[in-house]
Amino acid sequence: MSASGNTANFNGQKPTIDAADTAMLLIDHQSGLFQIVKDIEVPQLRANAIALAKAATLLNIPVITTASVPQGPNGPLIPEIHEAAPHAQYVARRGEINAWDNPEFHAAVKATGKKTLVIAGTLTSVCLAFPSIAAVHEGYKVFAVVDASGNHSRLATDLTVARLAQAGVVPIDIMGTLSELQGSWNRPDAQAWANVYTQAMPHYQLLIESYIKAQEVANNHEALDSERK
Amino acid sequence: MSASGNTANFNGQKPTIDAADTAMLLIDHQSGLFQIVKDIEVPQLRANAIALAKAATLLNIPVITTASVPQGPNGPLIPEIHEAAPHAQYVARRGEINAWDNPEFHAAVKATGKKTLVIAGTLTSVCLAFPSIAAVHEGYKVFAVVDASGNHSRLATDLTVARLAQAGVVPIDIMGTLSELQGSWNRPDAQAWANVYTQAMPHYQLLIESYIKAQEVANNHEALDSERK
Amino acid sequence: MSASGNTANFNGQKPTIDAADTAMLLIDHQSGLFQIVKDIEVPQLRANAIALAKAATLLNIPVITTASVPQGPNGPLIPEIHEAAPHAQYVARRGEINAWDNPEFHAAVKATGKKTLVIAGTLTSVCLAFPSIAAVHEGYKVFAVVDASGNHSRLATDLTVARLAQAGVVPIDIMGTLSELQGSWNRPDAQAWANVYTQAMPHYQLLIESYIKAQEVANNHEALDSERK
Amino acid sequence: MSASGNTANFNGQKPTIDAADTAMLLIDHQSGLFQIVKDIEVPQLRANAIALAKAATLLNIPVITTASVPQGPNGPLIPEIHEAAPHAQYVARRGEINAWDNPEFHAAVKATGKKTLVIAGTLTSVCLAFPSIAAVHEGYKVFAVVDASGNHSRLATDLTVARLAQAGVVPIDIMGTLSELQGSWNRPDAQAWANVYTQAMPHYQLLIESYIKAQEVANNHEALDSERK
Amino acid sequence: MSASGNTANFNGQKPTIDAADTAMLLIDHQSGLFQIVKDIEVPQLRANAIALAKAATLLNIPVITTASVPQGPNGPLIPEIHEAAPHAQYVARRGEINAWDNPEFHAAVKATGKKTLVIAGTLTSVCLAFPSIAAVHEGYKVFAVVDASGNHSRLATDLTVARLAQAGVVPIDIMGTLSELQGSWNRPDAQAWANVYTQAMPHYQLLIESYIKAQEVANNHEALDSERK
Amino acid sequence: MSASGNTANFNGQKPTIDAADTAMLLIDHQSGLFQIVKDIEVPQLRANAIALAKAATLLNIPVITTASVPQGPNGPLIPEIHEAAPHAQYVARRGEINAWDNPEFHAAVKATGKKTLVIAGTLTSVCLAFPSIAAVHEGYKVFAVVDASGNHSRLATDLTVARLAQAGVVPIDIMGTLSELQGSWNRPDAQAWANVYTQAMPHYQLLIESYIKAQEVANNHEALDSERK
Amino acid sequence: MSASGNTANFNGQKPTIDAADTAMLLIDHQSGLFQIVKDIEVPQLRANAIALAKAATLLNIPVITTASVPQGPNGPLIPEIHEAAPHAQYVARRGEINAWDNPEFHAAVKATGKKTLVIAGTLTSVCLAFPSIAAVHEGYKVFAVVDASGNHSRLATDLTVARLAQAGVVPIDIMGTLSELQGSWNRPDAQAWANVYTQAMPHYQLLIESYIKAQEVANNHEALDSERK
Amino acid sequence: MSASGNTANFNGQKPTIDAADTAMLLIDHQSGLFQIVKDIEVPQLRANAIALAKAATLLNIPVITTASVPQGPNGPLIPEIHEAAPHAQYVARRGEINAWDNPEFHAAVKATGKKTLVIAGTLTSVCLAFPSIAAVHEGYKVFAVVDASGNHSRLATDLTVARLAQAGVVPIDIMGTLSELQGSWNRPDAQAWANVYTQAMPHYQLLIESYIKAQEVANNHEALDSERK
Repeated sequence: MSASGNTANFNGQKPTIDAADTAMLLIDHQSGLFQIVKDIEVPQLRANAIALAKAATLLNIPVITTASVPQGPNGPLIPEIHEAAPHAQYVARRGEINAWDNPEFHAAVKATGKKTLVIAGTLTSVCLAFPSIAAVHEGYKVFAVVDASGNHSRLATDLTVARLAQAGVVPIDIMGTLSELQGSWNRPDAQAWANVYTQAMPHYQLLIESYIKAQEVANNHEALDSERK
Repeated sequence: MSASGNTANFNGQKPTIDAADTAMLLIDHQSGLFQIVKDIEVPQLRANAIALAKAATLLNIPVITTASVPQGPNGPLIPEIHEAAPHAQYVARRGEINAWDNPEFHAAVKATGKKTLVIAGTLTSVCLAFPSIAAVHEGYKVFAVVDASGNHSRLATDLTVARLAQAGVVPIDIMGTLSELQGSWNRPDAQAWANVYTQAMPHYQLLIESYIKAQEVANNHEALDSERK
Repeated sequence: MSASGNTANFNGQKPTIDAADTAMLLIDHQSGLFQIVKDIEVPQLRANAIALAKAATLLNIPVITTASVPQGPNGPLIPEIHEAAPHAQYVARRGEINAWDNPEFHAAVKATGKKTLVIAGTLTSVCLAFPSIAAVHEGYKVFAVVDASGNHSRLATDLTVARLAQAGVVPIDIMGTLSELQGSWNRPDAQAWANVYTQAMPHYQLLIESYIKAQEVANNHEALDSERK
Repeated sequence: MSASGNTANFNGQKPTIDAADTAMLLIDHQSGLFQIVKDIEVPQLRANAIALAKAATLLNIPVITTASVPQGPNGPLIPEIHEAAPHAQYVARRGEINAWDNPEFHAAVKATGKKTLVIAGTLTSVCLAFPSIAAVHEGYKVFAVVDASGNHSRLATDLTVARLAQAGVVPIDIMGTLSELQGSWNRPDAQAWANVYTQAMPHYQLLIESYIKAQEVANNHEALDSERK
Repeated sequence: MSASGNTANFNGQKPTIDAADTAMLLIDHQSGLFQIVKDIEVPQLRANAIALAKAATLLNIPVITTASVPQGPNGPLIPEIHEAAPHAQYVARRGEINAWDNPEFHAAVKATGKKTLVIAGTLTSVCLAFPSIAAVHEGYKVFAVVDASGNHSRLATDLTVARLAQAGVVPIDIMGTLSELQGSWNRPDAQAWANVYTQAMPHYQLLIESYIKAQEVANNHEALDSERK
Repeated sequence: MSASGNTANFNGQKPTIDAADTAMLLIDHQSGLFQIVKDIEVPQLRANAIALAKAATLLNIPVITTASVPQGPNGPLIPEIHEAAPHAQYVARRGEINAWDNPEFHAAVKATGKKTLVIAGTLTSVCLAFPSIAAVHEGYKVFAVVDASGNHSRLATDLTVARLAQAGVVPIDIMGTLSELQGSWNRPDAQAWANVYTQAMPHYQLLIESYIKAQEVANNHEALDSERK
Repeated sequence: MSASGNTANFNGQKPTIDAADTAMLLIDHQSGLFQIVKDIEVPQLRANAIALAKAATLLNIPVITTASVPQGPNGPLIPEIHEAAPHAQYVARRGEINAWDNPEFHAAVKATGKKTLVIAGTLTSVCLAFPSIAAVHEGYKVFAVVDASGNHSRLATDLTVARLAQAGVVPIDIMGTLSELQGSWNRPDAQAWANVYTQAMPHYQLLIESYIKAQEVANNHEALDSERK
Repeated sequence: MSASGNTANFNGQKPTIDAADTAMLLIDHQSGLFQIVKDIEVPQLRANAIALAKAATLLNIPVITTASVPQGPNGPLIPEIHEAAPHAQYVARRGEINAWDNPEFHAAVKATGKKTLVIAGTLTSVCLAFPSIAAVHEGYKVFAVVDASGNHSRLATDLTVARLAQAGVVPIDIMGTLSELQGSWNRPDAQAWANVYTQAMPHYQLLIESYIKAQEVANNHEALDSERK
């Protein structure tokens, strides 16, 4: 058995994301559906979805968004996604639950000319899983960003991850996705990438705040308050 | 390796549920056995099992039910399943733990003429797992709805999911199952499907209640209480 | 120190609920606010609030309901409360967060002539806590039914319980409240009380289902399936 | 026993916050100390502390901040607090762990002329608890906002809440504090208060987003996507 | 304030259990009710209740048991309690939810002549709480053994403990109760006490097993298997 | 891909346990090692290991036990295993961590003539995993009973299950194992099997106790206590 | 009611620890008993107990230790306590479960001449609770350091904290205790105190490591690796 | 399918670690990154990483370490790794996120001449996963020690384990790794191995302490304290 294991459509290549061949699909991140999410804290989910959009913008990766009947209880798409990826293309559907079943959506994906898809969608079991499985079946390499998706229970997420892996989809998390896209800190836009992480990882933000202060103290030869008279 | 990965009996087809080729098996959802369940809250389990029955009724999918010695401590089948699926066929067994080992049950499945099975059963490790593995071995495509089943511990469920995936059964959750069966909101019975979700997802019910009220307020030009004098 | 300890306004009486002297206040059980609740599963919260209303109906206890700006995002009152307590009186407010600050609400409580209040309200920290503290200050005996209320975090609930106990409010749970109101199973409406518990306690429902079946089997001399040939 | 129970210094008054008599103390919300916090998610803690500052600004409540040796590993004060409360006064200490022990801090509190203190501080067991107990001892009415403070373990928080309640401090949560300060939605700055809640409660933000969209759909007679041809 | 704090009826005495003045009440430990318990694992609850009975037997403490309609869904008293305390007196009730309301039960308690009561009962919120509060009101010193009782949720237990403490009942756990009754290991029946702990604490059983083996190895100069050739 | 998926050595047969071809290996269930277990409650682990031994006795399945340096801190084998399976053969090792590396143990397995192994061992990551992987490599069909094993963390167990499944071992839980061995309730020793489940599943014990009582009440026409005068 | 609330023996003084009037009692921190602890991770408990000993050494606070039958399964006192507090006095008992009941232990406490006691003991419900309640009854001011004690369940700890608070003991955590003893960072032995925190709080250790490195980088004008060619 | 299942590059060999063919890669165990870790307690993670280094030293396994921009907020490598493995080679990178992409690091691995890699890295999703997948792709046998790595959420870890297993990497835990490397207790350096376990497993340390004391008591015929007069 080759190193690509159970991963579909890699044909012996290393099963990692090639940013140059990638399109990003952000599906059904809607205010109503977020109320149902129980496998991740909503602020973290919201931050993770936005971080994907920001990374796509930094790398000029095509982004396609869509929503499931946003005029109904599912609610509107959260606005930050299009704010973070102004180049993203929104495709309205006609009620199809699987976005892949919508001809315009399918055509939009095809029009990107990319063969690798990074997908996130709320709910994970449905809006992420259905297009991922369909895309693998059509020959795409698919990375499913589960912690930028959101699901109705942790058990449901575990079942969906097992189903996705079985179908040849690559399950991945937000940090794996961002870092695989970024590749190196030795690049001109390194600070912009740091901002992406800061927004999605509150403990990383704390690290940076403490780091900057510690260097200021050293550079300014600032005394400790506890040594003041 | 094809996109169907470790999924048994799909032979290169997309590993999703084809409602037209599907029979549903609801096994041993009994009052006594539910007392043992610890991997999911009992009201959620009960609602999920009923939702499966309702979806089958909406789509005219054959349903076969059975119970393990309901005259003993395992207790009676919960009544809502046959209420939600009046067309369901109940098959009594003779003590076989694996329903598949009962000749009448096996014959009933065969008589449906379907080659795809959606199965739920309490306990997951036994009443869901045994028939699922047996059916795959006979060439059926099998979807095991784990969160409509119920098990004695979360660890046991995780072990069973690993065993099922290894055996070529597709693990799936209630929302994935319902949505894959429904396919689209653009259908005459859309409201009936909304009712199915409402019953199984209490947060979705809240969404709908709030949505209806918000529209009423807009339509009736109702003032906010906080603006009353 | 007397047995009434830190409990306010009992003046040496046993700090328990006297149904004949009790009014029930059900405050702000609204679809939108329920989305914020994290200290209890929403279906359980909903069931507990309904159970209070049913018990009040069985005992002819006056019920007063109210809602916080139901025309806005907080959403409508859940309909089951007035269904379960058709005699309940709804009092609209003018934006006051503390229902007790609304003159009509305050007057409605006073009009009942009762000196003991059983209160539940969503959110616990606000809609339950504020009227409870105010009522104690005016001399009422107050029982705060925390698990029929719902709060934004378990930590917030623990803080609120500490605050309430400190202020002389009696913290209580749904089962303590129902059983203290009922008093005895030796009463003509015992079956109606059993129904109240069944609706609020899914495991109790299972017990009753199993019990009835076990007795049927005995009475009908039904054989075990596992003993059939 | 009066309604004020174990609450110190209320002398029979209702143990609630009187905004007109209140000063707010925000102590040691520093980037390094936040890394130690385990009883609440850091983004929630950060949001809660900021919400306190915003509410103080809306009501013109004096705010005093301080930090514990911010030149060392404890790190800098998070900047959002002074951004949200530009009128806040920062008092540097000389290493005193209990801010109350610092003469300038103590003088600053006294200079406000207020007798009610709303306090939050990281760590809860130390930076919140020590000044709270000291202030009660000097005759202040003290409300300790525990979920705007942050502690090294949930067990430690529970112990501290027990200690604070025992000492006559009133334990309170962020929602209880904000709502008690606000009082009513029937006020000119209601929208500003809604923004405070939105920032601190992500599920409330979702409610508002869904509500606005639902009203837009009604007002614009927008069709459902699922009804499009 | 004296050392007895909020503890009722101690009148300045140390608030501890005096075995010579103690009767034990074990209320409604029934198979059906145990199915509802969620705040403690059922085997641990069962073991703790039995341990109380054994300790009472070792010290000749009077034990009174009772059950709530054991002919119905609540089920029979678990048999081990009377096996462990053969001297226990069973008192049937007439449907009273609060055992204290049953005249025969009340008389049986009074007949013991004891003024200190150690009580456990399932459910905690009802069967433990109601008699405890009533007994305090009649002047008894009451110790409520909460982890030998069992309740429908952990939140309900926390509420009940707050209510009990407020009413002057002493909340206590199984180990505190057993050890306070035993007093010292320097007594002829020390081994019998060790057996009580072993049965209730599985990790203590492991300690003893390992200890005995370690001493055997030393006494027999047994070689390590890993040093065998 | 055949239905046997990733399961090693089944060669197209159904991947289930054939009791007639099975030997059971119970490895290093020692008092000291049990102190390290954190992925399952120790009483449940102990009960599950004993249940395996009892089932083997009922079906005359050969059992081989062993221990890792029981003269040292790992402690003695728990005695109940040999009590429940008096026919079990104990094989001492010479310090080999993987029991399979011990020639006498290996020979004992081979001497059974069985090609299917049901294995449990403490710690899961070591004492269960190492022999399981080795046995698969030698052509055995291996079922690893993870919840009769015990491990130092839940994370470690999840990692080990992934490793075992990857290596072709079948992960399974205690209930799946017992029920697959039993096959049917329609057998003369059905009561003995019920006892096995009762011992391992406390909620099943409660079911049986309630069931028997309910039937007695029906058979004896016993009145409810709540209907007594 | 005075600020000292329910706190025993403070007589209107501020209920805080006066290091100059304090003796520390460290009771039954034994290797065997630690195996039973479930309310705190054992390494954290061990670190907290050691931190208390170190703080006592820094401040010359008398320390008395004791053990419960260390020759039996309870095992030896962990050695680090006497290593960290070489001046500590060990008092052997004669089997008394409550250390306070042992005349030599009681005499040793009295001989210190201190009226404030900081106590920790394993198990919390017994070895901490019993001496704390007894000491309060004799007029001592008692601080019970619950997270330096260790108990058999979190529920048992919560019950014990409620009992202790009710009896007038002050519940406190490790950080509250250490910081109240230290008082200020503006002292010659500040670095020694930092070491105490570092040992007990792993995240604080990380903070210090990062801080030192950040300052080194600034002081040495070290370049970032990511800017190297 | 062979016994090696989905495991890459084993070519029919048993998928276990051959210490003689192994190099160990310890990647980015840095003080700052540890602040982000949420899937394992930091002290346990730190101990596990150190245990790997110690085991490598005992067996003379080559160790290569590296860090991600340690001059920035990620912080310095924890010092204990090089202390425990003085022979380890540190390779600085130039900002590459995947250590495998750094030519010097890649060359260092190659220079060891080993074909089996044991890898740990913080964060698991990035610093462990990326080099593991790359190394498998180049034909190495890779064991990923997930609980010596540390990740930003447990969900992210589960996703990464699924991705790694899918790619043919062997997921493993710290105990499986240590024990597979050690092989047997029947070796001259057995005591050194016991020390490795003791440092990483606090409950094992307790076992050894109790064991030694129990043997001392037996050897010295020491009396129990509880039998002293």
